[in-house]
Amino acid sequence: MLALTAVSFLALTAVQAPAPKPVTPTSIVEGAPASAWTDIPAEDLLVMQLTGGKRVVIQLAPLFAPVHVANIRALARGNWWEGATVYRVQDNYVVQWGNNESERPLPAGVVEKPPAEYARPQAGLTVHPLGFEDPYAAKAGFASGWPVALYDDGYASLAHCYAYVGVGRGLSPDTGTGGELYAVIGHAPRHLDRNIAVVGRVIEGIEHLSSLPRGTEALGFYGQESQYVPIERITLASELPAGDRPAFQYLDSSSDSFAAYVRARANRKDDFFIRPAGGVDLCNAAVPIRKTPAS
Amino acid sequence: MLALTAVSFLALTAVQAPAPKPVTPTSIVEGAPASAWTDIPAEDLLVMQLTGGKRVVIQLAPLFAPVHVANIRALARGNWWEGATVYRVQDNYVVQWGNNESERPLPAGVVEKPPAEYARPQAGLTVHPLGFEDPYAAKAGFASGWPVALYDDGYASLAHCYAYVGVGRGLSPDTGTGGELYAVIGHAPRHLDRNIAVVGRVIEGIEHLSSLPRGTEALGFYGQESQYVPIERITLASELPAGDRPAFQYLDSSSDSFAAYVRARANRKDDFFIRPAGGVDLCNAAVPIRKTPAS
Repeated sequence: MLALTAVSFLALTAVQAPAPKPVTPTSIVEGAPASAWTDIPAEDLLVMQLTGGKRVVIQLAPLFAPVHVANIRALARGNWWEGATVYRVQDNYVVQWGNNESERPLPAGVVEKPPAEYARPQAGLTVHPLGFEDPYAAKAGFASGWPVALYDDGYASLAHCYAYVGVGRGLSPDTGTGGELYAVIGHAPRHLDRNIAVVGRVIEGIEHLSSLPRGTEALGFYGQESQYVPIERITLASELPAGDRPAFQYLDSSSDSFAAYVRARANRKDDFFIRPAGGVDLCNAAVPIRKTPAS
Repeated sequence: MLALTAVSFLALTAVQAPAPKPVTPTSIVEGAPASAWTDIPAEDLLVMQLTGGKRVVIQLAPLFAPVHVANIRALARGNWWEGATVYRVQDNYVVQWGNNESERPLPAGVVEKPPAEYARPQAGLTVHPLGFEDPYAAKAGFASGWPVALYDDGYASLAHCYAYVGVGRGLSPDTGTGGELYAVIGHAPRHLDRNIAVVGRVIEGIEHLSSLPRGTEALGFYGQESQYVPIERITLASELPAGDRPAFQYLDSSSDSFAAYVRARANRKDDFFIRPAGGVDLCNAAVPIRKTPAS
């Protein structure tokens, strides 16, 4: 009985049974046709190699923060992050990395004071509505594979969900160059939406960041340099030899499969769930990502 | 400038300035009168000691799951968790511990099949409304220091927020004894509300759980026993010598300070924030907890 408790607790897939398998978020994603998946361009993939062979892959979001994303590409190409570290881990909040307190000059092409890309016009976005209330915005939904909060002023922001990546900045009017980045490792701090440039999300290896020791200084900074976690290199996938490039796809938020996936996230009906929630919040319907299948 | 970026990024407290300090969630909590704080009874505190001197303190919630909480007290008094381990760590989901797959007999007084304490009548609860929409329930609020989701059927559930503790169970009708427990270590999995007994929350030391290495088996189980994290002991604070007992208080959710705190969480106005959200979700207004001040 206790073995059953452990093994079946929170099981995400259906158990074997003669009855038809229930439709689950997992079964919908696994059954989605190839046409529902969209390739992520190699220049939108930032590969961060930590010590110990730990790889973190970040998908960039030029649709929402084009100048910051262009900066990040230029910082990577200019090898600006050489010697960078993870220097801050605040529980239930963020992991932050870069060249903290460095005076390192910015590579050519980096815009020193980017515009405040904290929201963008809704015009031009094709939004699949979440279909449930959002406590932070007038509406919530998904556009081109990204979770978006939609405001009454006609603007949309990329939401601060788990594993999403933003740009550290000082007090306004500073907007950050993109040199100092953070990833969310706790409950979505949605109050940061429209206050910071969100530039993408970790799509592989978030566990290498979220399991790091928490910093014990204020705001989770590590107190001693010996605690800093070395970053071996940060490279755009498009700069890697073709054979070494990671390749990923996201489930197109305008596909039927995506709509079915969101409905299933809101109404879990596998053998474990007794009462489907009948709703889901924006950050609990994580956009499905997969490695590009071998063709 | 980069130093500023790092130090002031996401600063939660006001920077020094000649202008009056803005009212922040932190300043409200720090300024709350002693009368706004409520002592947590020692028999509601479960002290879990991990190897390496790491202490985790859990506040139990008898108001919501009285039979499961009584079981947990009996399991602790009966030393049922001797030899227990943390055996599952699933990223952005849960850390789970207990005597997985053990056939250890239950101590006297433990109810083997507790009722399904997944929700309770709203009658009898004094609810301070959150004041913003909830994607999962008809309304959300706080009762006796706990975040609650309120449904149209007249029931209330304790919400699965970050650090909240639930009871592992098998498939229904199993409800779990309380011997296998988990804590949330990611974005609130609110779809578990009304499906599992929530019995409390980690109020100290969640970082000792959330920073553990993730399990690589299905659902985050550790694949090898050598990965299991030993638990030295689990004890009720009321069973400890008076001098060794941890003592905590929560900010009373019916106090003026609590109401001001929630308003401030929804409308952050320190020097860092440009656009206050104007809203907050239930799990982002964490109930303030503090160590009981020396009298």
